[in-house]
Amino acid sequence: MVWDVLNMIGTIAFAASGAVVALEVKYDIIGAYVLGLITAFGGGAIRNLFTGIPITELWQQTSLFIAALITISFVILLSNKAVDLLTKWNIFDSVGLSAFAVQGAMYAQSIDLPLFAVMFSAAITGAGGGIIRDVLAQKKPIVLRQDVYLLWALFAGFIIGMDLLSESYQFYILFAI
Amino acid sequence: MVWDVLNMIGTIAFAASGAVVALEVKYDIIGAYVLGLITAFGGGAIRNLFTGIPITELWQQTSLFIAALITISFVILLSNKAVDLLTKWNIFDSVGLSAFAVQGAMYAQSIDLPLFAVMFSAAITGAGGGIIRDVLAQKKPIVLRQDVYLLWALFAGFIIGMDLLSESYQFYILFAI
Amino acid sequence: MVWDVLNMIGTIAFAASGAVVALEVKYDIIGAYVLGLITAFGGGAIRNLFTGIPITELWQQTSLFIAALITISFVILLSNKAVDLLTKWNIFDSVGLSAFAVQGAMYAQSIDLPLFAVMFSAAITGAGGGIIRDVLAQKKPIVLRQDVYLLWALFAGFIIGMDLLSESYQFYILFAI
Repeated sequence: MVWDVLNMIGTIAFAASGAVVALEVKYDIIGAYVLGLITAFGGGAIRNLFTGIPITELWQQTSLFIAALITISFVILLSNKAVDLLTKWNIFDSVGLSAFAVQGAMYAQSIDLPLFAVMFSAAITGAGGGIIRDVLAQKKPIVLRQDVYLLWALFAGFIIGMDLLSESYQFYILFAI
Repeated sequence: MVWDVLNMIGTIAFAASGAVVALEVKYDIIGAYVLGLITAFGGGAIRNLFTGIPITELWQQTSLFIAALITISFVILLSNKAVDLLTKWNIFDSVGLSAFAVQGAMYAQSIDLPLFAVMFSAAITGAGGGIIRDVLAQKKPIVLRQDVYLLWALFAGFIIGMDLLSESYQFYILFAI
Repeated sequence: MVWDVLNMIGTIAFAASGAVVALEVKYDIIGAYVLGLITAFGGGAIRNLFTGIPITELWQQTSLFIAALITISFVILLSNKAVDLLTKWNIFDSVGLSAFAVQGAMYAQSIDLPLFAVMFSAAITGAGGGIIRDVLAQKKPIVLRQDVYLLWALFAGFIIGMDLLSESYQFYILFAI
């Protein structure tokens, strides 16, 4: 299903992005795992909180959790030079946000929330994890500094909230920053 | 009703304060909207969370939401000089905190919470939004640096928790920083 | 009971640690109380949120709350020199984290959560308060910079999740940083 694929892509991308940021600001190994997991699952946790979905549903995502752990381990094993490269080239943020924004919007749409809440769900699911990551790494959240991220998320939420659900194909087109 | 008036005043003041801070730290347009909305609704969200009120009630405040969006748009249209002025003269913080502290206390009082919880509700409703705003803008939260804000909020909570509800008039007197 | 003792030790240690950090970064008196209380109760609040325990249970811990207030008052009365000393010698963090990690794991174990959730509960109960404290004081969270803290918490969670509950004695042995 589109949903599960997006969820997996978003989780891996954000887990990698959290681990990269942790290494960039010289956090320890465990710090990289913590930041990777928080980035990967933080957006969904906040969305659940605000849309009234039980937050404990997070605990049933075992395969996503394992995928995130493997991704983070992989990032930790990279050379410093590779991490520097990944830091500049923040593809993970874009990919993670795109995947989660669409997934968050589909989630909200599937429980029949109004258009506005679908857009909010897209934005918070996509951006929430990255915002918490940046706060914990003492950086200014990138989604607040660069409009394009959130605009895209709101747009995705709007499209999906309007029930133009052929989206799963359009989604891949929108994979530029 | 006093309650609705306070809610509107607090929402507008905090939305403006969030947008001003966002512009001050050079966030983008969308960053200003995000920070404005978070400042305006964050305190109430945290209060709901901690007092067991469903957080989804936030979604029913359409008129407040629209008022916040208009306020933020207005701030964004201001000249740099006007924003600098507003940054120094942090009237919005004081007004928003006062309005929300009283409103938060009345809320807690109306569902018969004990005195201590009413005081907490006043403090968190008044200060919560501003604390999240400052964290996201990488500033030290102003309410932690200057005692007077929280003292006032706790005092307002105490007054209201004790059922001295002629408060709605005294409230306007307390509008100095 | 072991549980109550740990809860009291953790609360006092974290309340002290929060107040010390607040004074270190020149927050006001009320800032010290706020940061002390948030550090003492933040970890438990987040754990409740994520494990589905009603967060309002926090309000029933009156004796812990009073103990925290007394501790913070005591820290505020200390001389600058004593505060400097406590800042360097971050014993409170270690003690608080140890006590709360064990307590959090026991809590999760007592409601029959799976091993992984018990380990998470140990980590978040132990580290959550300190992370929020550091974010509010604009410092990089110490648990992300130094592996040993979280490793210990996860280890404690593992031991307790495996039902090797003679732990209450081993616990005192593990009190080195």
